Amino acid sequence: MKILVDVMGGDNAPDAAVIGALDAAKSFSDLSVTMIGDEDAIHEAAAKAGRMEELESVGIVHTAEVITMEDPALSIVRVKTESSMAVGLRMLSEGRGDAFISAGNTGALHAGSSLIVRRIRGIQRSAIATVLPFARPVLLIDSGANIEVEPSYLRQFAIMGSIYMSHIFGIQNPEVGLLNNGTESTKGTKKLIEAHELLEADESINFVGNVEGKEVPLGRCDVIVTDGFTGNVFLKLTEGLGSFLLSKLKECFYENIITKASALLLHGSLKKMKNSFSVSEYGGAPLLGLSKPVIKAHGSSDARAFTMAIRRAADFADTGITVEIAKWIEEDHSRKESMREAGANSAEAAEESGESFESADDKAIFSADAEMPKT
Amino acid sequence: MKILVDVMGGDNAPDAAVIGALDAAKSFSDLSVTMIGDEDAIHEAAAKAGRMEELESVGIVHTAEVITMEDPALSIVRVKTESSMAVGLRMLSEGRGDAFISAGNTGALHAGSSLIVRRIRGIQRSAIATVLPFARPVLLIDSGANIEVEPSYLRQFAIMGSIYMSHIFGIQNPEVGLLNNGTESTKGTKKLIEAHELLEADESINFVGNVEGKEVPLGRCDVIVTDGFTGNVFLKLTEGLGSFLLSKLKECFYENIITKASALLLHGSLKKMKNSFSVSEYGGAPLLGLSKPVIKAHGSSDARAFTMAIRRAADFADTGITVEIAKWIEEDHSRKESMREAGANSAEAAEESGESFESADDKAIFSADAEMPKT
Repeated sequence: MKILVDVMGGDNAPDAAVIGALDAAKSFSDLSVTMIGDEDAIHEAAAKAGRMEELESVGIVHTAEVITMEDPALSIVRVKTESSMAVGLRMLSEGRGDAFISAGNTGALHAGSSLIVRRIRGIQRSAIATVLPFARPVLLIDSGANIEVEPSYLRQFAIMGSIYMSHIFGIQNPEVGLLNNGTESTKGTKKLIEAHELLEADESINFVGNVEGKEVPLGRCDVIVTDGFTGNVFLKLTEGLGSFLLSKLKECFYENIITKASALLLHGSLKKMKNSFSVSEYGGAPLLGLSKPVIKAHGSSDARAFTMAIRRAADFADTGITVEIAKWIEEDHSRKESMREAGANSAEAAEESGESFESADDKAIFSADAEMPKT
Repeated sequence: MKILVDVMGGDNAPDAAVIGALDAAKSFSDLSVTMIGDEDAIHEAAAKAGRMEELESVGIVHTAEVITMEDPALSIVRVKTESSMAVGLRMLSEGRGDAFISAGNTGALHAGSSLIVRRIRGIQRSAIATVLPFARPVLLIDSGANIEVEPSYLRQFAIMGSIYMSHIFGIQNPEVGLLNNGTESTKGTKKLIEAHELLEADESINFVGNVEGKEVPLGRCDVIVTDGFTGNVFLKLTEGLGSFLLSKLKECFYENIITKASALLLHGSLKKMKNSFSVSEYGGAPLLGLSKPVIKAHGSSDARAFTMAIRRAADFADTGITVEIAKWIEEDHSRKESMREAGANSAEAAEESGESFESADDKAIFSADAEMPKT
């Protein structure tokens, strides 16, 4: 199993990715790791950490260009075609690796992976799936790729999320909720009301209904489905609120000598709690719906987060999630085809099956660069 | 100053509202309180608390109907016109009270207050403004009234929120952020990009730009502007995540005898921290943009929360926020009028000024009951 790592993306590039990749190469004997990025910078990062000789244990593919956070999403196929991200995605698509990881510009990664690696046939949009360490692990899909969505995309997100949670977390028949501003089926925008109908009607989804923001951390479902805008706000608020509450807690501890003493006593278990919230624990977020595994590592990933993301990417490539999603899409398509042949709801079925298997104009999808997320 | 309280709304009705109102009548000698609701239920609640004789210190207006959480928003003007909420709003509109408080169905309160109390002339939509106890107090507007918004509404929310924060919290020139999925001005949907332009161009707003979910708890701005759907998710996630993190903290404390002991030592300061997050602290959320003060108390309000909401309602009525908003709208209108007369951007200015002062068909606005929030 060969994992491709873009070492030029993220806040701590290239050091965090280089060290994370070296650690992964050392820890996971079943994997080979290839770093993609500026060779001099890679050497420098390894030298700084006193690990030059370990570079022999990994592959290095030199690239001179870097996609920055400010670059528009489509620059990956238009201007910066020799960037570490573009080269990595091309290597993946050509079979010169089994999974690709990047902590760089999310919009470029989303557009680039759809255009270079391609989606699974029939999948309308790929989506970022982030596992959150709540009362039970919850998969948030889409957590940032598609700012605006159609009801049919949300249904596919629900399917892909369910397959991911059952394969990676071993959850039988994962419970799926639709993020909404109330639990009643009539809540939310017209699109959400329609999405609710689609999810409820689909027997392959274990749909628990609309779920409010309050219920998600408390463990109401295994998969929470939403558009990429709301998902992005949800994800980042979770992060911000976590840091804020921990800082408030620290204030409690520093209040006086007694509270300081008790903080010392609690040190171990608080550290455990803090670690369980760390972005590095779950190792990056997959872009589901692509024909090959692409993992978005968090922009603030440290070396440990990269190591975990490499492990997660290998597991992902191993489990056959992609095959499973493709199988479901095929079956879904056949179901609609036979409905169409049977003449039942013929117009509707034809329309839907056409939608699922259309050859989408990907460049048109991503042409509105302004709407693409970059972080 | 006379405060009208709907005692039939909320999870703990009527007890919490009745006791809260009695406490307010006792504590705040500058206020008179009138309860609106089922007289028998009010008597029963007071009797249970052994406070029957105190009922003499408050007014009671008997109503037989109640708007439930399941009722569609427009039922307040169509079917349940004799409900405690409808009667209270009519009393407010007729000058038989200075402010109205309800913990009931948000959609009905939003629709009812627009239709009965009416908005300030020129205000396109009223919005719920909730103060969140973050690193600095942050006003979240809209936190649930308008599921879908136009860029021009968001601009008005920014103005109203700024006026509220400067009057109630004494903040000079409050910093306003637009909730978005990235900080760049090109982020978000087309509507958000347009809203960003409107906010940036407006010299009466101290606009700090797009703000990500992560930055809000850490105190990036005083007012965070968003649509009611995202605002609802934001608000409820904040609640849910708070409870979840506190429960995780408790787990740390119960780990062993040492951590239990340290929990005892920390008890006081942790309680203080927990209280600073309590919904009761900030006493309900005003619906800004109405011609008179209407306060939405949290559905889970206890007696203390009602007491605080009554205090907040009186302060709100006292400060002249409504007058200030009306003044701003007038000035804004004049500015546009003179621009129009000067012939500068004549078409655009005419269109905008028409929009601001149109006599909106309110029933049409609220006719899509399915889109109205109920909680």
